[in-house]
Amino acid sequence: MTFWKSFFKQQRNHNNNFKNNEIMTRRNILLIKDLNNNGEYLDIYLNINNNISLYDLEKLCDSVGWVKRPIKKVKTAIDNSFLIVCLSYYKDNKKNLIGFARATSDNSFNATIWDVVIHPEFQGKGLGKELMKQIIKKLRHYDISTITLFADPQVIKFYKHLGFVVDPDGIKGMFWYPS
Amino acid sequence: MTFWKSFFKQQRNHNNNFKNNEIMTRRNILLIKDLNNNGEYLDIYLNINNNISLYDLEKLCDSVGWVKRPIKKVKTAIDNSFLIVCLSYYKDNKKNLIGFARATSDNSFNATIWDVVIHPEFQGKGLGKELMKQIIKKLRHYDISTITLFADPQVIKFYKHLGFVVDPDGIKGMFWYPS
Repeated sequence: MTFWKSFFKQQRNHNNNFKNNEIMTRRNILLIKDLNNNGEYLDIYLNINNNISLYDLEKLCDSVGWVKRPIKKVKTAIDNSFLIVCLSYYKDNKKNLIGFARATSDNSFNATIWDVVIHPEFQGKGLGKELMKQIIKKLRHYDISTITLFADPQVIKFYKHLGFVVDPDGIKGMFWYPS
Repeated sequence: MTFWKSFFKQQRNHNNNFKNNEIMTRRNILLIKDLNNNGEYLDIYLNINNNISLYDLEKLCDSVGWVKRPIKKVKTAIDNSFLIVCLSYYKDNKKNLIGFARATSDNSFNATIWDVVIHPEFQGKGLGKELMKQIIKKLRHYDISTITLFADPQVIKFYKHLGFVVDPDGIKGMFWYPS
């Protein structure tokens, strides 16, 4: 721990090492520039498959304007997701959920990523990118080779930067909705 | 049982009631025209989440030229799928797997359908359509509203007929593969 503490301290004292939106990652801690750009850094904790407060998740989804979903259905979805990734930070000893994503999977060949969300105040800092990288890393750890998602038009570019390909070999994403 | 037996018998005696590719469905039995068009009908059994022989599945996938997959990974994928649908028929008291599909899901909001396959000798008879209808019905039974899949170019039309929509609201299917 002492090594990491001093490492982080060093980094914190070298602001110029950080470009805009750049993130230092060490273990499960992401260091990002303070929101007020006052030369300090925030520790963002990345947790995988930890317990998540459904109330905090609802608040996070509210913050980006998502339609409210029945809490019981959200619990079922969380319980039956293969992977849950959370980003949070502590302020006044209180944990704040600021990022979330999950994946369904057959634990073998395929995974599909759903519900990627970063709190608006923390967007544009590279956290979404880091969240996705961690998901890909974890899924690859399980030797899952086909990682898929359905991207809204405004985030296609974001996923392309991460190596995702639209309609490879003409394969099309298709949806069936109740009529 | 007596009612169904006599019902089926009646139907079998009225060939003209069946158009090409038309299927009679009663409970989990689909009646299709005999392959040799000799006026007889085959009973195709539809089973959901029943035990499946991995060897039979491999043989079925071979029949459509799919790349062979490690049996251990196939077992994991089957075990962790939310829904497994099989079509089979009996010949000389031997069960033959002729159709298969599975879906991953969070058991709540979303499901993704994978590995839809019909044995070449049984294609073009409406079995794939019936298989998909049963999957949709079952997923709807669990109140899963977003049913998705990734369609190869040659089957997009098939899924459109079933009510699937390509890229709704510009949402794009995206894939990440290991480099």
